[in-house]
Amino acid sequence: MSSPCIFCSPDSPVVLFQNEHAYCRYDDYPVTPGHLLIILYRHISSIFDANETELAAMIDLVRLGKEHLDRAFNPEGYNIAINDGTVAGQTVMHLHIHLIPRYPGDMEDPKGWVHQVLKVSEKMLELKGNPPSRI
Amino acid sequence: MSSPCIFCSPDSPVVLFQNEHAYCRYDDYPVTPGHLLIILYRHISSIFDANETELAAMIDLVRLGKEHLDRAFNPEGYNIAINDGTVAGQTVMHLHIHLIPRYPGDMEDPKGWVHQVLKVSEKMLELKGNPPSRI
Repeated sequence: MSSPCIFCSPDSPVVLFQNEHAYCRYDDYPVTPGHLLIILYRHISSIFDANETELAAMIDLVRLGKEHLDRAFNPEGYNIAINDGTVAGQTVMHLHIHLIPRYPGDMEDPKGWVHQVLKVSEKMLELKGNPPSRI
Repeated sequence: MSSPCIFCSPDSPVVLFQNEHAYCRYDDYPVTPGHLLIILYRHISSIFDANETELAAMIDLVRLGKEHLDRAFNPEGYNIAINDGTVAGQTVMHLHIHLIPRYPGDMEDPKGWVHQVLKVSEKMLELKGNPPSRI
């Protein structure tokens, strides 16, 4: 039996905000405080399979996420990243966009945030093999 | 005198394809073979200042870039990344999206592509201090 997709049916409490096509939640393993994921409801793995309406819906949530983080965390910048395909480091094969707020001195190497994402990915892989009841 | 923006007025030969609002070119310091940049014509630094029309135009070029790279380089995946703000590793303060094709075994650490981007950023900083006549 294959593991259920951890992004397909989020428990209501984890959904920060949503629209018809996508939702936004905190990453359970934040690279920095406030690290958000924007997740399409439809289960596809690749952004290139999303239609224009879905992309617009995700972008709307990226904007809302940024506004939320500006108010709640007051970061000085953002990394927006999509890993498309296993070879590109995608570990959960359900389309999601990382919105990572950045703060002065938040990392030893200010451009080394993917080091942290790698650690997250490893954790997510563990979760995929042994999914928790709630994530 | 401030240095001219290296993304504002591209020489025609470097423009792979374009639309009314944005253009696509190869990165001069590719992280992997085929590494593309999608650059808005309007000189703004942040994706959050782009309007819907401009975003749609950039996304169109990301799609075209992907189709071009699929044909020309046949990668197995992609990283799409935006660094928004100096604190996030942005070095050229003119909005651009990285479209980085990925290949099996292309990097020692398959998720470590930002190590490479860091090297690129350092080179770009040098260029900003001493801009070449053409880039």
